[in-house]
Amino acid sequence: MATNTASIGILGATGYTGAELLRLLASHGSARVTCMTSERFAGQAIDAVFPHLAGRDLPTLSKIGDEDLGALDVVFGCLPHGTTQEVIGALPKGPKIVDLSADFRLRDPALYESTYGKPHGALARQKDAVYGLTELCRDDIRKTDLVANPGCYPTTAQLPLCPLLEAGLILTDPIIIDAKSGVTGAGRAPKEGSLHTEVSEGLHAYAVSTHRHIPEIEQGLSEAAGEAVAVTFTPHLVPMNRGILATTYVHLANSATPEDLQAELERRYREEPFVRVLPFKSLPATRHVRGTNRCLIAVHPGRLPGRAILLSVTDNLVKGASGQALQNMNVMLDLPETEGIGVEPLFP
Amino acid sequence: MATNTASIGILGATGYTGAELLRLLASHGSARVTCMTSERFAGQAIDAVFPHLAGRDLPTLSKIGDEDLGALDVVFGCLPHGTTQEVIGALPKGPKIVDLSADFRLRDPALYESTYGKPHGALARQKDAVYGLTELCRDDIRKTDLVANPGCYPTTAQLPLCPLLEAGLILTDPIIIDAKSGVTGAGRAPKEGSLHTEVSEGLHAYAVSTHRHIPEIEQGLSEAAGEAVAVTFTPHLVPMNRGILATTYVHLANSATPEDLQAELERRYREEPFVRVLPFKSLPATRHVRGTNRCLIAVHPGRLPGRAILLSVTDNLVKGASGQALQNMNVMLDLPETEGIGVEPLFP
Amino acid sequence: MATNTASIGILGATGYTGAELLRLLASHGSARVTCMTSERFAGQAIDAVFPHLAGRDLPTLSKIGDEDLGALDVVFGCLPHGTTQEVIGALPKGPKIVDLSADFRLRDPALYESTYGKPHGALARQKDAVYGLTELCRDDIRKTDLVANPGCYPTTAQLPLCPLLEAGLILTDPIIIDAKSGVTGAGRAPKEGSLHTEVSEGLHAYAVSTHRHIPEIEQGLSEAAGEAVAVTFTPHLVPMNRGILATTYVHLANSATPEDLQAELERRYREEPFVRVLPFKSLPATRHVRGTNRCLIAVHPGRLPGRAILLSVTDNLVKGASGQALQNMNVMLDLPETEGIGVEPLFP
Amino acid sequence: MATNTASIGILGATGYTGAELLRLLASHGSARVTCMTSERFAGQAIDAVFPHLAGRDLPTLSKIGDEDLGALDVVFGCLPHGTTQEVIGALPKGPKIVDLSADFRLRDPALYESTYGKPHGALARQKDAVYGLTELCRDDIRKTDLVANPGCYPTTAQLPLCPLLEAGLILTDPIIIDAKSGVTGAGRAPKEGSLHTEVSEGLHAYAVSTHRHIPEIEQGLSEAAGEAVAVTFTPHLVPMNRGILATTYVHLANSATPEDLQAELERRYREEPFVRVLPFKSLPATRHVRGTNRCLIAVHPGRLPGRAILLSVTDNLVKGASGQALQNMNVMLDLPETEGIGVEPLFP
Repeated sequence: MATNTASIGILGATGYTGAELLRLLASHGSARVTCMTSERFAGQAIDAVFPHLAGRDLPTLSKIGDEDLGALDVVFGCLPHGTTQEVIGALPKGPKIVDLSADFRLRDPALYESTYGKPHGALARQKDAVYGLTELCRDDIRKTDLVANPGCYPTTAQLPLCPLLEAGLILTDPIIIDAKSGVTGAGRAPKEGSLHTEVSEGLHAYAVSTHRHIPEIEQGLSEAAGEAVAVTFTPHLVPMNRGILATTYVHLANSATPEDLQAELERRYREEPFVRVLPFKSLPATRHVRGTNRCLIAVHPGRLPGRAILLSVTDNLVKGASGQALQNMNVMLDLPETEGIGVEPLFP
Repeated sequence: MATNTASIGILGATGYTGAELLRLLASHGSARVTCMTSERFAGQAIDAVFPHLAGRDLPTLSKIGDEDLGALDVVFGCLPHGTTQEVIGALPKGPKIVDLSADFRLRDPALYESTYGKPHGALARQKDAVYGLTELCRDDIRKTDLVANPGCYPTTAQLPLCPLLEAGLILTDPIIIDAKSGVTGAGRAPKEGSLHTEVSEGLHAYAVSTHRHIPEIEQGLSEAAGEAVAVTFTPHLVPMNRGILATTYVHLANSATPEDLQAELERRYREEPFVRVLPFKSLPATRHVRGTNRCLIAVHPGRLPGRAILLSVTDNLVKGASGQALQNMNVMLDLPETEGIGVEPLFP
Repeated sequence: MATNTASIGILGATGYTGAELLRLLASHGSARVTCMTSERFAGQAIDAVFPHLAGRDLPTLSKIGDEDLGALDVVFGCLPHGTTQEVIGALPKGPKIVDLSADFRLRDPALYESTYGKPHGALARQKDAVYGLTELCRDDIRKTDLVANPGCYPTTAQLPLCPLLEAGLILTDPIIIDAKSGVTGAGRAPKEGSLHTEVSEGLHAYAVSTHRHIPEIEQGLSEAAGEAVAVTFTPHLVPMNRGILATTYVHLANSATPEDLQAELERRYREEPFVRVLPFKSLPATRHVRGTNRCLIAVHPGRLPGRAILLSVTDNLVKGASGQALQNMNVMLDLPETEGIGVEPLFP
Repeated sequence: MATNTASIGILGATGYTGAELLRLLASHGSARVTCMTSERFAGQAIDAVFPHLAGRDLPTLSKIGDEDLGALDVVFGCLPHGTTQEVIGALPKGPKIVDLSADFRLRDPALYESTYGKPHGALARQKDAVYGLTELCRDDIRKTDLVANPGCYPTTAQLPLCPLLEAGLILTDPIIIDAKSGVTGAGRAPKEGSLHTEVSEGLHAYAVSTHRHIPEIEQGLSEAAGEAVAVTFTPHLVPMNRGILATTYVHLANSATPEDLQAELERRYREEPFVRVLPFKSLPATRHVRGTNRCLIAVHPGRLPGRAILLSVTDNLVKGASGQALQNMNVMLDLPETEGIGVEPLFP
C-alpha cells in the first residue's frame, strides 16, 4: 500500500473539518482525493464553497448515493453527529473508515443512548470501532477498519491525563478540566451564537457540566485508571478561530510530586512526533500549535501541596479533528505517521 | 458635599484606568477633574495622549510635584504598583484618596513584603487603608480617607465567594479559580506580550499559582470564612480588550445544595445596583457587562454531587478598576452610589 | 412636549439597531419605550433575545398588529428594507416616525424601483419623507412627521463631501469613496459570511460599484452640487464590530487648496455637537467614536497638486443608525439635540 | 547547486520576517539554515525568542561579527532599514544575498536620500542590486548576487498595475491605491500603536500621501509605463495580523475596456504559480492567501464608463516578504521556484 496512492473519499466535505483535510492532503505523498460529497452543494466545484481551495485538482462535489464508496481505499466521515451512523452502517466492507463524528466513540450503547437521546443506529459496525486517540490506541488502530476519531476537547484533555492515571500518579477525583475553545469548534453552520458580532471581544462558558464530550472523556480516563472516573468539565468559547487550551486541576496520589508527573509524561511521549511535553512550568499557547497536529503539555505545581495543574493545547481542527484523522489513516495504511502532517505553526 | 462639586485629581492619568475614570466622570454630576498628572506627558493636553478625549474641558497634564494635591477633594491614584505608596505617603491629610494600585490592599506588611519583594514604604498610611470592594466593605469605606481599590481578578473572584464562605455553605478547600482576562489588564505600556500580533487568535495561561493577586484574594476569603483560606488561581490571557470571567469550582459544605448557594447570593445582592445574580444555571458573558460597573454571577450544579461551579464576569476596567473607584468615591462623599456610573453595556 | 415624556415604539426591536436605540434611550430624560415589536419573539421579554438588556423596565415584545401604534408619540422603524414601507404606509397619522430602513430615502420612485427591483409600496407617505442627515437637513426634519434615517455609509460619506460641493471647492468627478465597515452593518441574521470564522483575521471588498447605498449617496451629493454627481464607491468588510471609515479622493475645483477645504468644513460644522473637524492632516480612528454619535473628519493634501483626501469615521450603529435616529427624534420633538446621546467613546 | 544543500544565513532572525523564513525553510528540500544572527539575543536558542519554533534543529543565535558570512551560500537580510546597507556593504563577495529591507530597492541614490533623510551608505553594492518582484524581474534576478526584496505594499500594488501600464491599457494618472494592511507589517518591536488594545476593534489610515513605499511603487510603475508615474497611496491599519488588500482605482486608456484588463492580466500571469487572476468581478479576500505566497487579483468595471477597479491581496509576511525572498533565492540558485513555498492557505 505504501508505494501506491490511496484513493480517498470525504463525506461531508464542505465543513471546516473537510476543508482542513483537503488542506493537509495537498501535501500527502500517497493519497489522492477522488470523491467528495455534499448533499447541499452536489454538482458544484469545491471552490464555489471554499474559494481558498480554487486551483486544486479536486473532484466535483457529489451526493453520497451517487458514488461507489466501496471502491475507495479510505473514507473520511465529516458528517454531522447522528446521520453518520446510518451512512457508515450502510457502507460495504472494504474501505478503511475514519469517522470524525461522535457516532462511534462511545463503546457502551446505553451510554450513547443516554447522551444523544436516541438508540445507536449501527450497532453492528460500532462493535468493531476503535477509538482513535493515536498515541494511546495505536496498536488497535493498526488493525481496525473503522476508527472513531476523538473529539477536540477529549483529545486535549486525555493526552495529559491518561498516562498519569495509568501510572497511578494522580487521584481519580477530583479532576477538573477547565477548557477553552476557538469558534471553529462550532462548525460552519450559520448560527447567531457564532456570528462575529456575538463572539469577538467577549467570553463565556457554555454547557456547564452537561457537554456531550464528558462521557467520551470519562470513558478514556476510566480505561486508563482501571476504575470509573467522573470529571468536572467546563467549556468556554474564546474569540479566536482555532485552538483549545485545557487547564486541568488534579490531586497527586500517595507521595507523588509534580516532578513525577513531568517525568512520567516525558517518558510516555518521548518518541511521539506530535506530542511535546514542555519543560516544567512552561506556558504553552494555542498560537504555538496553530495549523499543526501538535499537542503541547506543561506541568505546574499547585499552590497547595499535593496538587498539580496540567496545561495542554491543540489546534482543534488539526490534532482535534482532521490532522489526527489523517494520522490515523497513516497508521491504518502503514504509512509514515507524519506523512502529510506538518508541525510548523503559522505564527503570528 | 452632595450639593457642591468635588474637585478631582487623577495621578497617572495617561494609562487605561485614568482614561476610564475620565470617561465615567464626564457624566458625573458632582465632580470636576481639576488636576491630572503624568510624569511623561506633563505640559501636554490629554488628547495628545488619548485622541478620543479631544474636545473635553480638562486641565493640562502636570507633574505631581507641581500641584497642590492637598487642596483637592478627591485624589485617584492610577500610578504603578510600588511608586504609589511613596506618593500617597507624602500626601497631606485632606483629600479622600482612592488608590487603584496594589500598594495598600494587603493588610499584613509581612505579606506585602513577601509578595512584592520589598518592605512597604508607607506603613503609617497603610494602617488606615480600607479595602474597597464596595458591596462587602461599604461601611468602612464610608468612614475612611484612603481606599485601596481592589484588583480586577480579586473583585471578580470575591463577589461570588465571600458571601458563601460567610454563610458556611462551601468548604474552604478546594477552591479553584480559573480566571480569564482581556488585554487591558496588562496596561498601556508597550510590551511584546501585549502586541496585537502576540495576543489575537490565541490563548495561554500565565503566572500559574504565582500571580500577585492571590494573597489579595485569600485575604478577603479568609476574612469571610473566619479562617485561613488558600486558593488555587490560574489566570489566562484572552484575545479581547475588556472583560474578566472567573470560573470557580467549589465543594459544598455539609448538606448545602447548589440551590442554597443561589438563594444566599440572591439574598445578599438583592439591593445592590451593580451586582446581579442571574437565574440558576445562567451563562453570563463578559460582553454583557462591557463598559459597565456590573458583576454578573451565576451558580451551576457540579456534575458530581456536593460540588458547584460559580461563574462571575466583570469589565476589568470598570468594576475591576475605575468604575469601582468611582463607586467608592461616591460612598466616601455620601453621594448616590450610582452617580456617573452607567449600567448599559456597549453590545456588540 | 419637552416637559412631558414621549411614548416610544420600536418596530423590529430585536436587531442591533433596536438594541442600540434601547441602549441610548436608557439615559434619555424625556422618552419612555412603551412598545417593542418582534414578529419572531412576540410574547417574550427583551432579555430572552438580548441578555445584556436584562433588568431594564421594558415592555414585552409584541406583534405589530397587536399594538395601537397611532397612540404613540414616536415610532422608530427598525424593520428590514422592503417590509418597512407597508408597515409605515399603513400607520395612522399622529406619531412622529423615524425609519431606519432604506425604504423612504430615495426621493425618485423610479430610482427606488431600479435600485430595489420593485415599485415602491407607499408612495403617498414617501412624498412627505425628509432625509434625516441631521446636520444638513435639520430645518426640514423639524417640520416633518416622517424622517428617512440615512444609511451608515451615506452618513459617513456625505458629511465631509456635501459642504465642499455646495461651496464649489471640489470637482464633481472624480469622487472616489473607499469605505470600510465593521460587521454590525450586516445585521444579526445568521449568515455564513458574518460568522466569526469567516470574518476575523481577514478583509475583503464586496458589492464593488453596485452597493445599494450608491444612489442614496449620489442623491445627497447631487443636491449639494446643484448638478448630477456620480461617484465611485467600494465597501469593504473589516474584522471589527463597529465603525466605518471612508477614505475619499477628490480633485480640487479651480484654485482651491486643501486648506480651503479644511476651512470650509470647520466653518460649516463649528457649532455642531456631533461633527468634529480635526486639525489639518489628522488621522481619525473608528475607535475614537466607538459608541458615540460623533463623526470625525480630517482633510489631507494629495500627493499630487490639485488633489485632496478626506477621512471620515463614524460608529455605524450610532451616527450611522440609532444615534442619528434619536438625534432626529430630538429635533422633531424640539428637545435638546444631544439629549440621551453621549459623546464619550468606549476605548479601548 | 540543485543537488546540493545550500547553507543559509539569516541576519536578524528574531523578527517576524525571520520567523516566517524559518517556517518556510522547514519544508525546503535543498536548503539548511546554518547561521542566524540577533544582536539582542545572541547566545540564545531561537525558541527563547519564538517558543513555537522549539524542537527545530537550528543553530544558536549569534552576533553578525562572530560569523563567517562569506562561507554561506545564501544570506537573507532581515535587519531594520538603514542598518542593512552597512552590513551588506561589508559582506565579502560570494553568498547570494536577498535583502528584505528597503535599503537597496530605490535605484536612484538621490531619491533614496530624499526618502530616507540620509545618503545611501553602500552605493557600490547598490549598483548591482536587482529589484526582486519575481514575476516581473525574474531574468535579472537569475543573474544577480543581490536582490532587493520588495516591500509588502509595493508587491501587492505593482502586480496588477505593471502589466496594464506596460500594455498601455490604463492611464498613468490618476492611479489611486487605497491599501489596507494587517499588523505584522509593523514588526515585532513593542510600540503603543501596535498593542492589541490600540489595534483591535478599530481602523485608521496613516502616513497619508507620505508613506515611504510610495517612491518604490512609483519606480516600478514608471518603468512599466515608460514614463514618470505618480500615484496616490493611502495605507490603513486593519485589526488582523496578516494580509494586505489593495483597492486600486484606474482610468482606462483609449478605448480599453475592463475586460481587456482582465484578458491582459490573465495572459501575463497564466503560467505563474503564485499569481492568480480570478474570474472577472471576483472578490478576493486576504484570508484566501493566509500563509501562502499567492497574490490574487480581480478586475472590476467602474461605476462610471472608462474606469476600472483592481483588487489584489497578499499575505504581507509571505508574498510581501519572506515567501518572495525564498522564491527569489530559488530563482538565484536555479531551483524549482515553488520549492519550500506552499500555496495552501490556513483557513479559517
